Amino acid sequence: MATRYKMTMAYDGHLFHGFQLQPDQRTVQGTVEDALKKMTKGKRIIVQGSGRTDAGVHAVGQVIHFDYPGKTIPANRMILALNSMMPTDIIFNDCEIVNENFHARYSIKGKWYRYRVSLDHFVNPFKRFYTGHFPYVLDVEKMQEAAQDLLGKHDFTSFAASGGQIEDKVRTIYYVNIVKDEKENEIIFDFIGSGFLYNMVRIMVAALLEIGNGRRPIHDLKRVIAAKDRQEVRQTAQASGLYLYHVFYDEIPQKYRLD
Amino acid sequence: MATRYKMTMAYDGHLFHGFQLQPDQRTVQGTVEDALKKMTKGKRIIVQGSGRTDAGVHAVGQVIHFDYPGKTIPANRMILALNSMMPTDIIFNDCEIVNENFHARYSIKGKWYRYRVSLDHFVNPFKRFYTGHFPYVLDVEKMQEAAQDLLGKHDFTSFAASGGQIEDKVRTIYYVNIVKDEKENEIIFDFIGSGFLYNMVRIMVAALLEIGNGRRPIHDLKRVIAAKDRQEVRQTAQASGLYLYHVFYDEIPQKYRLD
Repeated sequence: MATRYKMTMAYDGHLFHGFQLQPDQRTVQGTVEDALKKMTKGKRIIVQGSGRTDAGVHAVGQVIHFDYPGKTIPANRMILALNSMMPTDIIFNDCEIVNENFHARYSIKGKWYRYRVSLDHFVNPFKRFYTGHFPYVLDVEKMQEAAQDLLGKHDFTSFAASGGQIEDKVRTIYYVNIVKDEKENEIIFDFIGSGFLYNMVRIMVAALLEIGNGRRPIHDLKRVIAAKDRQEVRQTAQASGLYLYHVFYDEIPQKYRLD
Repeated sequence: MATRYKMTMAYDGHLFHGFQLQPDQRTVQGTVEDALKKMTKGKRIIVQGSGRTDAGVHAVGQVIHFDYPGKTIPANRMILALNSMMPTDIIFNDCEIVNENFHARYSIKGKWYRYRVSLDHFVNPFKRFYTGHFPYVLDVEKMQEAAQDLLGKHDFTSFAASGGQIEDKVRTIYYVNIVKDEKENEIIFDFIGSGFLYNMVRIMVAALLEIGNGRRPIHDLKRVIAAKDRQEVRQTAQASGLYLYHVFYDEIPQKYRLD
């Protein structure tokens, strides 16, 4: 007898070696599994995330599931119990009891990533862990136009870092939006897609910044996608600017379907 | 022969043991003095701040001065040289060559402190080092009305932590403003005054939060000021929410003179 919990969490990734459990490293999965082990007096409960995030990458809406043995704990009590055991860089914001058909990874309909780029001349001390940094000329409208070339179903081999184990590199991007936050002096990139390959968002951001800076032609991404060659984009934007913003388990809302 | 530099800096205070030099502790003053020592090949140059900030307290516009020996380095080169030697939690944003009448501390006409309070139910991982936290009922208009009682010239003994060495506890507060940032779900407190006693801003914020929460009468600060007794306010808001926002060396602008 076990109860399946779906939990939504935020974390500041800068002091974690990523989401995935690694021996002798501070990871998000390891931190949550340690807490569950205390709650169950020593049982190992496997925490399944919607996907990994790399070292330094943040989450606003990461989703996990796990099967908790024994007597069912109400969702509101589970959230309080886990939050009371979390370090201050992890917080659970939502908890639901779900049936065994729900799977944090396999039930995904889409993911939303956000990337923040600070335009400050020098690295802002308050943003060093929370943004990428690009203190150069940048044409936002140009990037927004270029980004439309990413929409739709494509083989994204050119945007996949080596190290990913997935063979099928076809993904669908439903929505891309790039805006300037004047108050914060930042560019905010939003990407919603069926899924993203290893480092794909950070590589897309790096390519878009090159276009915005005039170092690539505006519609170069069409060519890059067609080339299916990672050498076409050598840069990867810093981990510090990336946020797993939301995971969709229902159909992507119509307003986010530009494809 | 030496040249006096006035420099404006921002720092993320969460990994510093405050501004003031302390043996075997990481401090802002110590970090800047170490860099200057390298530039002068071993000379100790004393860095004078506008005032201290405590461990965990931040600065958006701290001001320092120091006398640099030998040949004058242009201001724009001094800022680049120092920034290249700073850790990422300190940044110099402005540099001016000033005459010897300028003194970072004694030339002050006023100071502006900001305090940020997060109203999130749980501590937000991204704000844990950058805000105070008050997840309770809070009436902003009530606090704004109460804060007007702080304006003007008063003996602020009731708002001074022990540990301050200053005998004269009379200060003038020119401007207080309290607003809710709906997007961030935060309350922003701004205080501009002739000067502030040790922990004075954090104690004022603690008292105002008690009023906003209904635990003190709205005009209780009048009574507290008159009492001249620190026991009247036992709380001190967390260091993490406090920012030295600006130091005035000219007269306080008229728009900030509500007193």
